[in-house]
Amino acid sequence: MFDPITMSLNVDPLLRSALQEDITSEDVSTNSVMPAGKRGHADLICKQDGVICGLQVFARVFRLLDPETSVIFHVMEGDDVSRGQLLAEVTGDIRVILSGERTALNYLQRMSGVATYTRRVAKLLEGTGIRLLDTRKTTPNNRIFEKYAVRVGGGYNHRYNLTDGVMLKDNHIGAAGGVREAILAAREYAPFVRKIEVETENIDMVREAVEAGADIIMLDNMDHDEMQEAVRLIDGRAEIEISGNVTAERIPQIRDLAVDYISSGALTHSAPILDVSLKNLHPTE
Amino acid sequence: MFDPITMSLNVDPLLRSALQEDITSEDVSTNSVMPAGKRGHADLICKQDGVICGLQVFARVFRLLDPETSVIFHVMEGDDVSRGQLLAEVTGDIRVILSGERTALNYLQRMSGVATYTRRVAKLLEGTGIRLLDTRKTTPNNRIFEKYAVRVGGGYNHRYNLTDGVMLKDNHIGAAGGVREAILAAREYAPFVRKIEVETENIDMVREAVEAGADIIMLDNMDHDEMQEAVRLIDGRAEIEISGNVTAERIPQIRDLAVDYISSGALTHSAPILDVSLKNLHPTE
Amino acid sequence: MFDPITMSLNVDPLLRSALQEDITSEDVSTNSVMPAGKRGHADLICKQDGVICGLQVFARVFRLLDPETSVIFHVMEGDDVSRGQLLAEVTGDIRVILSGERTALNYLQRMSGVATYTRRVAKLLEGTGIRLLDTRKTTPNNRIFEKYAVRVGGGYNHRYNLTDGVMLKDNHIGAAGGVREAILAAREYAPFVRKIEVETENIDMVREAVEAGADIIMLDNMDHDEMQEAVRLIDGRAEIEISGNVTAERIPQIRDLAVDYISSGALTHSAPILDVSLKNLHPTE
Amino acid sequence: MFDPITMSLNVDPLLRSALQEDITSEDVSTNSVMPAGKRGHADLICKQDGVICGLQVFARVFRLLDPETSVIFHVMEGDDVSRGQLLAEVTGDIRVILSGERTALNYLQRMSGVATYTRRVAKLLEGTGIRLLDTRKTTPNNRIFEKYAVRVGGGYNHRYNLTDGVMLKDNHIGAAGGVREAILAAREYAPFVRKIEVETENIDMVREAVEAGADIIMLDNMDHDEMQEAVRLIDGRAEIEISGNVTAERIPQIRDLAVDYISSGALTHSAPILDVSLKNLHPTE
Amino acid sequence: MFDPITMSLNVDPLLRSALQEDITSEDVSTNSVMPAGKRGHADLICKQDGVICGLQVFARVFRLLDPETSVIFHVMEGDDVSRGQLLAEVTGDIRVILSGERTALNYLQRMSGVATYTRRVAKLLEGTGIRLLDTRKTTPNNRIFEKYAVRVGGGYNHRYNLTDGVMLKDNHIGAAGGVREAILAAREYAPFVRKIEVETENIDMVREAVEAGADIIMLDNMDHDEMQEAVRLIDGRAEIEISGNVTAERIPQIRDLAVDYISSGALTHSAPILDVSLKNLHPTE
Amino acid sequence: MFDPITMSLNVDPLLRSALQEDITSEDVSTNSVMPAGKRGHADLICKQDGVICGLQVFARVFRLLDPETSVIFHVMEGDDVSRGQLLAEVTGDIRVILSGERTALNYLQRMSGVATYTRRVAKLLEGTGIRLLDTRKTTPNNRIFEKYAVRVGGGYNHRYNLTDGVMLKDNHIGAAGGVREAILAAREYAPFVRKIEVETENIDMVREAVEAGADIIMLDNMDHDEMQEAVRLIDGRAEIEISGNVTAERIPQIRDLAVDYISSGALTHSAPILDVSLKNLHPTE
Repeated sequence: MFDPITMSLNVDPLLRSALQEDITSEDVSTNSVMPAGKRGHADLICKQDGVICGLQVFARVFRLLDPETSVIFHVMEGDDVSRGQLLAEVTGDIRVILSGERTALNYLQRMSGVATYTRRVAKLLEGTGIRLLDTRKTTPNNRIFEKYAVRVGGGYNHRYNLTDGVMLKDNHIGAAGGVREAILAAREYAPFVRKIEVETENIDMVREAVEAGADIIMLDNMDHDEMQEAVRLIDGRAEIEISGNVTAERIPQIRDLAVDYISSGALTHSAPILDVSLKNLHPTE
Repeated sequence: MFDPITMSLNVDPLLRSALQEDITSEDVSTNSVMPAGKRGHADLICKQDGVICGLQVFARVFRLLDPETSVIFHVMEGDDVSRGQLLAEVTGDIRVILSGERTALNYLQRMSGVATYTRRVAKLLEGTGIRLLDTRKTTPNNRIFEKYAVRVGGGYNHRYNLTDGVMLKDNHIGAAGGVREAILAAREYAPFVRKIEVETENIDMVREAVEAGADIIMLDNMDHDEMQEAVRLIDGRAEIEISGNVTAERIPQIRDLAVDYISSGALTHSAPILDVSLKNLHPTE
Repeated sequence: MFDPITMSLNVDPLLRSALQEDITSEDVSTNSVMPAGKRGHADLICKQDGVICGLQVFARVFRLLDPETSVIFHVMEGDDVSRGQLLAEVTGDIRVILSGERTALNYLQRMSGVATYTRRVAKLLEGTGIRLLDTRKTTPNNRIFEKYAVRVGGGYNHRYNLTDGVMLKDNHIGAAGGVREAILAAREYAPFVRKIEVETENIDMVREAVEAGADIIMLDNMDHDEMQEAVRLIDGRAEIEISGNVTAERIPQIRDLAVDYISSGALTHSAPILDVSLKNLHPTE
Repeated sequence: MFDPITMSLNVDPLLRSALQEDITSEDVSTNSVMPAGKRGHADLICKQDGVICGLQVFARVFRLLDPETSVIFHVMEGDDVSRGQLLAEVTGDIRVILSGERTALNYLQRMSGVATYTRRVAKLLEGTGIRLLDTRKTTPNNRIFEKYAVRVGGGYNHRYNLTDGVMLKDNHIGAAGGVREAILAAREYAPFVRKIEVETENIDMVREAVEAGADIIMLDNMDHDEMQEAVRLIDGRAEIEISGNVTAERIPQIRDLAVDYISSGALTHSAPILDVSLKNLHPTE
Repeated sequence: MFDPITMSLNVDPLLRSALQEDITSEDVSTNSVMPAGKRGHADLICKQDGVICGLQVFARVFRLLDPETSVIFHVMEGDDVSRGQLLAEVTGDIRVILSGERTALNYLQRMSGVATYTRRVAKLLEGTGIRLLDTRKTTPNNRIFEKYAVRVGGGYNHRYNLTDGVMLKDNHIGAAGGVREAILAAREYAPFVRKIEVETENIDMVREAVEAGADIIMLDNMDHDEMQEAVRLIDGRAEIEISGNVTAERIPQIRDLAVDYISSGALTHSAPILDVSLKNLHPTE
Repeated sequence: MFDPITMSLNVDPLLRSALQEDITSEDVSTNSVMPAGKRGHADLICKQDGVICGLQVFARVFRLLDPETSVIFHVMEGDDVSRGQLLAEVTGDIRVILSGERTALNYLQRMSGVATYTRRVAKLLEGTGIRLLDTRKTTPNNRIFEKYAVRVGGGYNHRYNLTDGVMLKDNHIGAAGGVREAILAAREYAPFVRKIEVETENIDMVREAVEAGADIIMLDNMDHDEMQEAVRLIDGRAEIEISGNVTAERIPQIRDLAVDYISSGALTHSAPILDVSLKNLHPTE
């Protein structure tokens, strides 16, 4: 669940902006026909099997338009849901239900899509102790929703952004004059509460990184043998993250590696939505 | 191309917000090692076949950070591109290239993904005269990018939002007391420059809508026979839009219908990204 | 009435900004003398005959400052009101009444002014079937209020802005290479839910426009004879709008034309305010 | 002239918001037909006699859309202008001229309208030494433009808002327990750089105010005899402002009073616009 | 007390921005361990003797995060408080107390620091009739809090900003061509509700200023003898303000001067905080 | 130095807001007397010995008002400066210099004050290897400036905010059911790039924390003996931070402890400003 603080400080401005994207001055169709203050009821129905995620956001969209809107959930955040299932019931001003519907569903479908795909991949790692990580390959202005959905789906979050994590890539290393120099510079400059991660592309870089005291070593786009060698070389002296076009298909091959993390951009950039729909809207009075 | 007016009034605020999502106070890694004012050069490389879209946005992200950044394109917006192709070259302050890279790519990949998927579906309609439409099932706070990408991919835009188009659904019709009443109410209330579209679910509704003078009739989730009957019944008196889980797979079956438009939410809600990457960043001095 | 969704998404930010324009840090006069939490009551009195418009906005200004403010209306939105009439009673924190008064009245007076002038012009068209339209000649950052007031006064809204309507003027036509080419370009580019309007200045342009399939033809600044000829020529094949310095004075001359719409910038750019005033503020405890 | 600091800090955000009101995602008509980067030229023509005001704002609207737009003025801010006169020439991207035209004109027409009406009233006061003042009865979110236009027209500004001036009205006086008490409270509370004005409705209040040391005394809605008596009574011990439905028509009757200021809400709330128009737009290449 | 209007229009946006500075997406520590909806209670304890100021702001920070938070005060704004004293009790969602604590205390400590220092200096002026003034040397984006704290501490506010007061310094005087010319220019340009203050650096400037009719004369960085001479010269014809590195230490020397005001930048730019602390947070259920 | 990305994304909005705090519609004094476009020159003079910090911000304030303003520095960021020294020269539109002066100096004085105090404390730690840290006790909406000034003064930054660092305090530990449980919960929930810090108040808590694998252990308000015992107990298994009213005065007593960090809120909450001043402004033409 989003805590209420995050919701009000960080999420609400995004929801309001999304609503304004859809309603620049009014919902013309609804205002043409719908009398004021008529209350109604609608069902939120699942149209595909998957993991539901974003229930709070779904409800909040309506409540930003009218705090009197009531949403009763029949499932919990992160539940496995199946086609045809009744997920929630919405009761409130019919104009609010009609005008908020699309924005509420756009969030819910996308967040559930990310959670569904994440759980599918995470399950492939069960029993290995390897954690599945997201990346910064998120949809602009939607990172807070997508990183949250990854957690709901059973994944873990990598750094949130460029400010709150240190990742030294080849260009940083080049600029610093070497792996060791880059790590020292980061220890000197970055807030000391950050772990320092180094992205490596070959065994030599791995060796340098582990010897220079990197906290986390990322093996980027290495083949299976290289990764095994890297694991042996590191030998517990740093946490290990595997990266590079990790999709569900590739997981089985890398399950046996003694690494700590596998990160996958696809969790957030290419998960298809989960189809859910608002049905049976009818007046209640 | 986005015109410069849209770019500065409507797009820039979203880009700035996306950059602030990724940099809440500074890029710690880059600032640890990268001296001020060092210039560099990087190549934008295509890693998958597809349609490129969002080149301007890609460049703008860097230019918002530093107007001195230069981006030279080797392809044009909407070009078919292929794996390994050099798409563009970026020259500028290395810190700007490093700090803007992820946000610039997140936009470019997503927009190219939508354009690629749209072109694939649009091609299936070639020769029919049927136009492929998007929907309002877009990613929150990204509609302007996704609707644009649909056009670049060869699709057409349906209404932009609830304010600039009239679509009467069953609930509007119910509230108004019938199709005819709903259309009259909309003609009375909505700015007269709007066409009025009615969403229909069966032949009776189609008949009512065409007789009441709807400008556009949407056939929602009908089977092939019903759609054929609807087309006969409408007989040129209104434009016809087909909707309802239209994916690339279903297009061939509906190619032969004498309709004007097919709309598909999948264009924007489920297109996977097109993989592109910034490579070979190196100092130029 | 503004629906509550428009009020909270689109109107509230403007009201808040207007209040901040009047109170950059505090109401010094009121804070000098008024103890906290003293409640009072005031009467909203009409000082001129006219049409009242903006009652909701008037109340909302006070409620944004303090949700506990109560406003009881003795008239309905759009009512004809007359000098001396009690329009509403405001009860609440006296500081809120004093500090919000000017902003609340500035909106109410202006909106009522527009509604009053619109009704006066609209009455001159009664019995003709011709609808009176507004234009985009509105006060910056006040369009939503002024377009609404036109409706309350019995007018109709033309397009809201450059995004939600297509109007092809001589420069667009010139750029496209002709009326026909411009219309085709607009049909290709603009969302298909838009009607296409062409602004014409002479009979030749009217002929071109109607033959090229314009949905709406505007006769701009034509004399009476030209307009009659245009109407005959169009012959029901397009809707017709008359424009060009249409004021109350000119209406009687054009009543007999078989046109659909008359648009008038004066409705929003030159209507004098309706004088209303907050009186008899007194403590209630 | 607006100084450049005010323009960038306080005016630009309002202009940008006005442009976004008119262009929520794009100018569809222009984008349908106008190729990128085509430059053009247009004339700003005066269509009514009056005072021109807002030239800078007019130019700034275009320059916010594209800094390359050039505006050459043939008149100076505050000049008397006459029907048919060429006021300025605009050269730039034709799309920018078309898309910015309405917003630029809406400001220019309104500001010129205020300046024109103000000059007309101010002229009636020439030779008397009485200064003409505006009020806070301005259009919401347009005060900075309207107060400026009053100055250009030859009027003077009263307080800008509730924060930067002290005006004690009957309710303040009632709350304080008397005129004297209210003035003392304001002297104690308000920043000492404020003068203290008291609004009086009869001779008794005037006497109290002058004896309690008010800096400015407003005679609100008094008749001519009362005002003369008030002037005698005050006898130079405070500045005097006359207020209450002061229009051009009433000025001649009050010219002979030995007062310092006459304030008029009509300057800003009921001045009709000055008609100006952008003509002869044509490509220059 | 901040009035509720100022709180909601002018203060809340700053508080929200301060909270977002501290919580860019979530309070990770709290969200790791704290279950939803657990309520708790904490004591606000004073850790230094001083003047308490900002109680409302302290409470508001929590209430912006959750309106259900209750804060019961055991002292009043402006009370002298002493080490160990219980100032207030906070009850609410423990996550809200933990996440809001630092921002709430940062405001309370700083405002109390300013009030404490101001009272100390103001006391040194007791019996003289001289008022202690603040300046514009405030912390950026904190002026509204610091100017308020000065009042709570027994000081008075000088002008709030460059817009609401006129102060003519040597550069203004130089540009105008003399003290007299500068004052005339200001009387012509500035809203007449402003008093005009002239900053003087020697007796000649004082003489010019008083003869030209300045309302307030500031003696800037003069020695004691010069100030006495200036006071004699002015002789009641203008208010007198003393300025220039006025600290608590220098006050006794200038107590005997017959001036109206002493202004001190140190009140806001160099007051150390008053240490207060939130203690004994414990669950209440 | 602030990098240009941080400056434009994160700093500029704060500077603009600070300028708007000081100029709500215009600088009345300057606009009264100063003709447009007159250029001038002024000297930035140091009035106290200390460390200069914020030079870029000082220049940026003027450049936001007018990009043509030139600032030539005679010192470098972080230099020791002394009373009377010429720090920089500002050349530009005199109105810009006058209107921006106070805001530019308010930032520069405060940032230099923090850097000066930090360097003084940091020097006391020289030779010990102990790093001096700041805290979150910063001025609201000024954290980015104050944390930067700490670095310039020779200190190091602790976590930036609640989002980018994990600090488990007694309430977190209580909620989790113990130190070990809290650490496990944080490892499970927080992005893995975060180190986990535990705040301890006695030796038992230190023991628990080190055994549970805390990355950093804070010794909060312990006496010297306790701290020595804690250091022995931890024995290199975690980094150690000392906290609790650390001021310059207390440093000598704790120099000999084998800890890694000492954090001090006073660096940002109670540093007096460094006095700097803009002098000798004169026209250059």
